[in-house]
Amino acid sequence: MRIALIGSGNVATQLGRALKAAGEEIIQVWSRSMEHASALATELEVPAVSSYSAITPKADLYIISVNDDAISSVASQLPVRDKILVHTSGSTGMEILKGCSPQIGVLYPLQTFTKTKTVDFTRVPLAIEGNDPAVLEVLGTLGSKISQNVIPMDSAQRRALHVAAVFACNFTNHLYALASGLMQKNGLDFGLLRPLIRETADKVQTFLPLEVQTGPAVRGDQQTINKHLALLQDSPELQELYRRLSQSIVNLHK
Amino acid sequence: MRIALIGSGNVATQLGRALKAAGEEIIQVWSRSMEHASALATELEVPAVSSYSAITPKADLYIISVNDDAISSVASQLPVRDKILVHTSGSTGMEILKGCSPQIGVLYPLQTFTKTKTVDFTRVPLAIEGNDPAVLEVLGTLGSKISQNVIPMDSAQRRALHVAAVFACNFTNHLYALASGLMQKNGLDFGLLRPLIRETADKVQTFLPLEVQTGPAVRGDQQTINKHLALLQDSPELQELYRRLSQSIVNLHK
Repeated sequence: MRIALIGSGNVATQLGRALKAAGEEIIQVWSRSMEHASALATELEVPAVSSYSAITPKADLYIISVNDDAISSVASQLPVRDKILVHTSGSTGMEILKGCSPQIGVLYPLQTFTKTKTVDFTRVPLAIEGNDPAVLEVLGTLGSKISQNVIPMDSAQRRALHVAAVFACNFTNHLYALASGLMQKNGLDFGLLRPLIRETADKVQTFLPLEVQTGPAVRGDQQTINKHLALLQDSPELQELYRRLSQSIVNLHK
Repeated sequence: MRIALIGSGNVATQLGRALKAAGEEIIQVWSRSMEHASALATELEVPAVSSYSAITPKADLYIISVNDDAISSVASQLPVRDKILVHTSGSTGMEILKGCSPQIGVLYPLQTFTKTKTVDFTRVPLAIEGNDPAVLEVLGTLGSKISQNVIPMDSAQRRALHVAAVFACNFTNHLYALASGLMQKNGLDFGLLRPLIRETADKVQTFLPLEVQTGPAVRGDQQTINKHLALLQDSPELQELYRRLSQSIVNLHK
């Protein structure tokens, strides 16, 4: 299975590393930016290209891993009339690739990727979708070489998964950032919060979050909530988020 | 140092276990509920009491670990005229203990505690405060027997730390719970999110959250944000939280 990586961002980078480590044959990396293409291609020891016309027609599988709003225009430029074409987006339906190839699909790794931190890909759930059983089988076989958790899922479920991931990851990291701002403002080191952050994530590895909710809102401790709201009075945005999240906790637990 | 544990909730339980494991002499556990007092006292192999009059006058240190709004009334009942009296609350000032003893202080473990999951207390930051240097020294010595991270902190800083902890832990767990609800509604297993949740918490163990923010809001990907808001249209509360948290990410990163 010869693979062309179309894109060189965080997802393409981590996916490329995992595929190479699993012994898969990546034959080219494309990016609109030659600099970005080269960085990843050099690491993977394959050629880099940055024009559409230079994209190899010799791959069996083309993995498009670009910004969601670029998927459609990039896909239409690929020499894939009889090849398998997939994208890696959680929030984009498979059908966006329709018309570009008879064999289309999705390979969505559910993880938060940063280029500078390599992830243990074997533990990353891979949601796969294919427009026919042959595609699904190819993606299932390939997927299970790099991940222990490959799950067939339709586009609607994948979209829901992606929204859930925004809450569980992106919004969560933002709460860490808001907490970090509060610490800084009061001359406290963010590092003090690190064990708490880790334990909060560790708890839900075995329990369900509903079972282990703690804090003033779930205790109905209005006195503490009022103290906290008063402390946040010079940060209206934080105060409003505090109020709404507390109310949401109360609503979920009543 | 003979210690009386006044309270038997999550904090008292974890603190009691850590103190006992460090070889400290706990001589009694009090709780308003004899059942709760007994549960912890049995584990610690000490006597349990549930009336104020039965509280021993023989301890050197009384640790009040009860709900914030009960601290004051419980403190006023203790036979501690010449003993060290501390509470364990993040959001309550030290001065609430004033008048109960000449030697007062605070021992606030910054962690989320559940009785059923034992925490590695050595990694729990302990914020300490005392109304004189002698109290601070006693708490510092005791604290460093159970934690590697003992930090003197005044009541104002501790309150700020507590608010930050609500964001980093309680609200974060609630986001996990909201994500879990979305998964369930779409026939998906919450377990799929677990590696993502762990990685999100792991990242900020070395990086600052601002440096590793991912997702549609920080990318300015309004198309995906709009798709997500549309998907949440039958959950107005989730939709509103999604909108506000996304806006807050944009505000923080502009």
